[in-house]
Amino acid sequence: MKKIEVIQNILEVNENIARRNQQLLDGHNVFAINIMSSPGAGKTSLIQQTLTRLKGRLNIAVIEGDVASTVDAEKVQIDAKAVVQINTRNMPENCSLMAAMMESALKDIPLDDIDLLLIENVGNLICPSEFTLGEHKRVVISSLPEGDDKPIKYPLIFIDANAVIINKMDLLPYVDFDINAFRHSVAGLNPEAEIFELSCKTGEGIEGWYSWILAQVESNATKQ
Amino acid sequence: MKKIEVIQNILEVNENIARRNQQLLDGHNVFAINIMSSPGAGKTSLIQQTLTRLKGRLNIAVIEGDVASTVDAEKVQIDAKAVVQINTRNMPENCSLMAAMMESALKDIPLDDIDLLLIENVGNLICPSEFTLGEHKRVVISSLPEGDDKPIKYPLIFIDANAVIINKMDLLPYVDFDINAFRHSVAGLNPEAEIFELSCKTGEGIEGWYSWILAQVESNATKQ
Repeated sequence: MKKIEVIQNILEVNENIARRNQQLLDGHNVFAINIMSSPGAGKTSLIQQTLTRLKGRLNIAVIEGDVASTVDAEKVQIDAKAVVQINTRNMPENCSLMAAMMESALKDIPLDDIDLLLIENVGNLICPSEFTLGEHKRVVISSLPEGDDKPIKYPLIFIDANAVIINKMDLLPYVDFDINAFRHSVAGLNPEAEIFELSCKTGEGIEGWYSWILAQVESNATKQ
Repeated sequence: MKKIEVIQNILEVNENIARRNQQLLDGHNVFAINIMSSPGAGKTSLIQQTLTRLKGRLNIAVIEGDVASTVDAEKVQIDAKAVVQINTRNMPENCSLMAAMMESALKDIPLDDIDLLLIENVGNLICPSEFTLGEHKRVVISSLPEGDDKPIKYPLIFIDANAVIINKMDLLPYVDFDINAFRHSVAGLNPEAEIFELSCKTGEGIEGWYSWILAQVESNATKQ
C-alpha cells in the first residue's frame, strides 16, 4: 500500500498549493483558465486566437506547459503581456502541470498588470484531470479528428470541466464525428458544462468563446 | 527525495515483470507489438485494419488498454482470436499500461494458439514511454491533424519507437502538416525508426505496414 499512500500525499500537497495559488491570483484580481486537451487538439491555436482578439480588452499572460521544447511559448509571445514556459521532461510527474510548477511560474508574471491568465497544460487527457493548479475555470478541447468517443474513454477530465470546446469544425466534412453523440456523452458526465463548436483555423463559431471568457472575467472581478 | 525513490522503484519492478512477460511470449513463439499514440490518432483503426487483412496469415490476439470503457475491445473482437480489455481508471498509475497489467492479461490469452499480440496502449504520448510491457517492438502513431511538431514536444516516445506511423494521410489537403519536417524531427531523435505514411480510413499506403509486421513475425520465429 506504500505506493498509494505516496500518491494521495502528492494530491493533497498539490491541493494545498493550488489553494495558495488561487488566493494569490485573487489578491491581484487575475482570472485563470486551465486549458487541457490531447496533443494537437488546438490548445495553442485557441490561445493565439484569444490573445489576438481580446488583447485590446484584457491584459493576458500565458503559462505554457510542455514535456519538452519552447515552440508554443514562441508562438504566443507576440500578443501576451508575459509568457512563462514550463518543461516537465525531467520532473518525476511529467505528464501534467502541477500546482507547484504554477506557483513557481507565477513569480515571473507581473500579476498587477494582468487581468487574465491562460494556462496551456501538457497535451494529455488523463494526468491533468488529477491536478488542479489554482485556476478558476477548467476547459477541455476535443477536436473532430480525435473521434466522438473521447468523453466515454477519458471521463474524468470532462466531469470537472466548466467548458468543453469542439475544435476543428472545418474538418467536419472529412471525418466521422457525431456532434450529437459527443454532446450527449458530455451532458451525461457533466450537464453544467458549456459546449462550444468552433474552428480556431477559420474562426467559425469562436465569438461565443470570447463572450464566455469576457463574462467569466467580469463576473470574477465583481466578486472580488 | 522519497517520491523519486518510489518512482524509480516502480520502474525497476516494471522492467522485471516486462522481462518475464517477454520470456513467456517467447516460450510460446508469440510476437508482441506495443501500439502507442495520442487519443484518437488511430490505434484502434490500425488494429482493426491489421486484423482484417492479416487474419488469414496470422492468429492475432489483442490487449486493449483504456482509462475507461470497452468500446475499442468491442470493435476488434470479431477478427481477433482473443481480446482482453484492461481499464486503468482506478489504478494509481492510470495513464499507461504497465507490465503487471499485461502479465495479468496474458493469463486470459491462449498463447499456444497465437502468433501475434497487438497491444493498444492508453491514448497518451507521455506515460507509455516510461513503461515497457514485454513487447518485442514499439510503434508510435502520429496523425496529420495533430500537427508535425509532436516529435519535438514528446521526444521520449519517438526515441524508443521501432516504427512511426503517420496516419490520416487522407486529410493532407485540409490540414497544415509538413511531412518532411516531421520525418526530419523523427530522424533526428531516432534514425533507425521505420516511418510509414498511411490512412487507416482509405487504406492508402497501408501495405508497407502489413509487410513490416509479417517480416518482424517471421524474423522472430526464425530466432526462436
